[in-house]
Amino acid sequence: MTSPLRLGIAGLGTVGIGVVRIVQRHADILAVRSGREIRITAISARSRDKDRGVRLSDYAWEEDPVALAARDDVDVVIELMGGAEGAARDLVEAAIASGKDVVTANKAMLALHGQALAEAAEAAGHVIRFEAAVAGGIPVVKTLTEGLAGNEITRVMGVMNGTCNYILTRMEAAGLGYNALFEEAEKLGYLEADPNLDVGGIDAGHKLALLSAIAFGTRVNFDAMEIEGIQRITLDDIRQAADMGYKIKLLGVAQMSGRGLEQRMSPCLVPETSPLGQLDGGTNMVVIEGDSVGQIVLRGAGAGEGPTASAVMADVIDIARGTRMSTFGQPASGLKAVAGATGSVPAPYYLRMALLDKPGALARIAAALGDAGISIDRMRQYGHDDGTAPVLIVTHKTTRAAMDQAVGAMAGTGVLASEPVTIRIEAV
Amino acid sequence: MTSPLRLGIAGLGTVGIGVVRIVQRHADILAVRSGREIRITAISARSRDKDRGVRLSDYAWEEDPVALAARDDVDVVIELMGGAEGAARDLVEAAIASGKDVVTANKAMLALHGQALAEAAEAAGHVIRFEAAVAGGIPVVKTLTEGLAGNEITRVMGVMNGTCNYILTRMEAAGLGYNALFEEAEKLGYLEADPNLDVGGIDAGHKLALLSAIAFGTRVNFDAMEIEGIQRITLDDIRQAADMGYKIKLLGVAQMSGRGLEQRMSPCLVPETSPLGQLDGGTNMVVIEGDSVGQIVLRGAGAGEGPTASAVMADVIDIARGTRMSTFGQPASGLKAVAGATGSVPAPYYLRMALLDKPGALARIAAALGDAGISIDRMRQYGHDDGTAPVLIVTHKTTRAAMDQAVGAMAGTGVLASEPVTIRIEAV
Repeated sequence: MTSPLRLGIAGLGTVGIGVVRIVQRHADILAVRSGREIRITAISARSRDKDRGVRLSDYAWEEDPVALAARDDVDVVIELMGGAEGAARDLVEAAIASGKDVVTANKAMLALHGQALAEAAEAAGHVIRFEAAVAGGIPVVKTLTEGLAGNEITRVMGVMNGTCNYILTRMEAAGLGYNALFEEAEKLGYLEADPNLDVGGIDAGHKLALLSAIAFGTRVNFDAMEIEGIQRITLDDIRQAADMGYKIKLLGVAQMSGRGLEQRMSPCLVPETSPLGQLDGGTNMVVIEGDSVGQIVLRGAGAGEGPTASAVMADVIDIARGTRMSTFGQPASGLKAVAGATGSVPAPYYLRMALLDKPGALARIAAALGDAGISIDRMRQYGHDDGTAPVLIVTHKTTRAAMDQAVGAMAGTGVLASEPVTIRIEAV
Repeated sequence: MTSPLRLGIAGLGTVGIGVVRIVQRHADILAVRSGREIRITAISARSRDKDRGVRLSDYAWEEDPVALAARDDVDVVIELMGGAEGAARDLVEAAIASGKDVVTANKAMLALHGQALAEAAEAAGHVIRFEAAVAGGIPVVKTLTEGLAGNEITRVMGVMNGTCNYILTRMEAAGLGYNALFEEAEKLGYLEADPNLDVGGIDAGHKLALLSAIAFGTRVNFDAMEIEGIQRITLDDIRQAADMGYKIKLLGVAQMSGRGLEQRMSPCLVPETSPLGQLDGGTNMVVIEGDSVGQIVLRGAGAGEGPTASAVMADVIDIARGTRMSTFGQPASGLKAVAGATGSVPAPYYLRMALLDKPGALARIAAALGDAGISIDRMRQYGHDDGTAPVLIVTHKTTRAAMDQAVGAMAGTGVLASEPVTIRIEAV
């Protein structure tokens, strides 16, 4: 048997402790599957004295996480501190410079600095692996990088923020507005310290940017992503979407268009009978489409101690087995810099508004759509007691620009009782 | 760049031609992802002259597939002929003996001879990879062997025969009996030459046996599997299961019980709202449960040129990248020989029968269940015009043995108008 693989773990929050628990509980199966012992030698965290419910006294302690990188008895640095900058980034850079492999769950750091870190690691002959950074326990990085490597990937989609999906699902089930559910999620501890990372779509956007790079062989380009959070979604949006057979999801979509790489993280409508439409609560789902394989759907827990630690361990076991992989599935130096495109992939749109009860009101709205070249697939107008008429419209495929033009024209008609809400309908 | 990886392909049916197409169409992305050129050098098939719609004249031709194993210009033998014995097995044995790696889609061969072949390959330092043998394009072998390798796997389930799922789904949608759908599937070319491989559950059973070996670190033990096909399922079963909120699926389940490894491939009821319950048509789904990751669901096309060739190419790219993996995720020589257990994992059962219209008939049935220690969760008795009363019962958890005892006792009551049908309800 080969020599043990020695781990240094920085960050002993939920995920870090989960990794410690797996290594302690499953020493036997890890060794038989890896062909060598997997052993923790050193750890680092904010507080040394906190009781974390697991025996840590066998491991060397470093006050400064970056010191893990310099230790002779560490082969792999596991970075679980989080944060795009600061100690996490310093540690990863130091680990690569010191000849260590790196496993991280840090989506923000990789979304912003992944290109530079991957190039540095590959130049030094080391690996950076990040299965735990995307969709928790779902092995989606491996699926995309290895399992579907024979495909030209045509589209990647995903619901990758459990908190947002929890809020949207619960709004419908409980009949409550966004603010009430935001508070509930806060009380349950589901939100990041900066909640905008969750509800603003940033966290899920980081994940999508990493999957895009693998899927399309492009440099990570988080800045070019179109991001919209769920804060504007109302209970009426959810109910009236349901009335037309749709669910609202914070959906990430990445695909190549003629104009470049289109990456969107935004509320979308998906058919309620589709796998994405049926995804309730905090579960994650990633849908990958390839030219040979067709559509592959992966579903599982997107967060939590066990699932995320499972993903960290998959990377550790790969390294123990001797599997060496470029961070993004091909040499980082060869990843293409492509333009970020927005609004170039046409889609049907869902349009909701309230009209004043005036003769010809609906005709003016229809004319505004027609003038923008948009045709109507389905329309519903509801009964009204207060002098306004709720109207739901599902269009045929059109562009974001045409929708913006139509909505702009509607503003000048004088028949709107509320600003129109438009939501893209993603074909899944 | 490293030297090219040279492939010898035996079998140019749908999947073989799919592999040729990917290698020809995607030479560039395969090279950049693998770090080396992937090149076909030699091929073999039954008929040299058949027009297969793809250019083959650049490749050396072997009349005898086994001759591929001896060629100096082949690094990897791709066996796509099928059949548990004969040329396929001869070729794989010869390839290993000649120092080649092997990629195969042959579930029957591996289910029956995988242990010996894996041991031979590993003793010689070569790999046998078989992603394409299980669930077509879904990278389930990789997910189980690598992506979830940090978990103790607690259960593996799957709908892995698209033809059976097509028949069961269509029976309900079209309101037709099993025989009509069997004929339809035959006309559409969905059935193997020996249809019992499909509808008898053998093909799906082979796949489950391979996943079991990986999941539980056990020797492939297809002979110990409990297998029941879909031939006895009637339209009434499907309709009355739907009436209780269930779908009938040919479901494979593998799990460890206190008595050994339980492997079942049989019609089961699953909740209609579960991912498995919502799986229509020819699509496959595999559900994997691990102690850390919880439940992971994978869904995709289980057959066809593109999806299966995608899986073959994933294995080829792994080999090109230098990833070396034991066939079943740990050394074959160390796989445990465990007893095959049947009927030891309790479950609720669905019980359907027709009773004669006699006073006390239902009481006797209920007594037979009670005497066997089985309690009733839900019961429905329907109206009846012909002197018999259809009765549906969902029991609480019980064992197969207790159900058999109860059904045996019912036969002696003299109140049955039809033989009771019992179907296990799998908790998903």
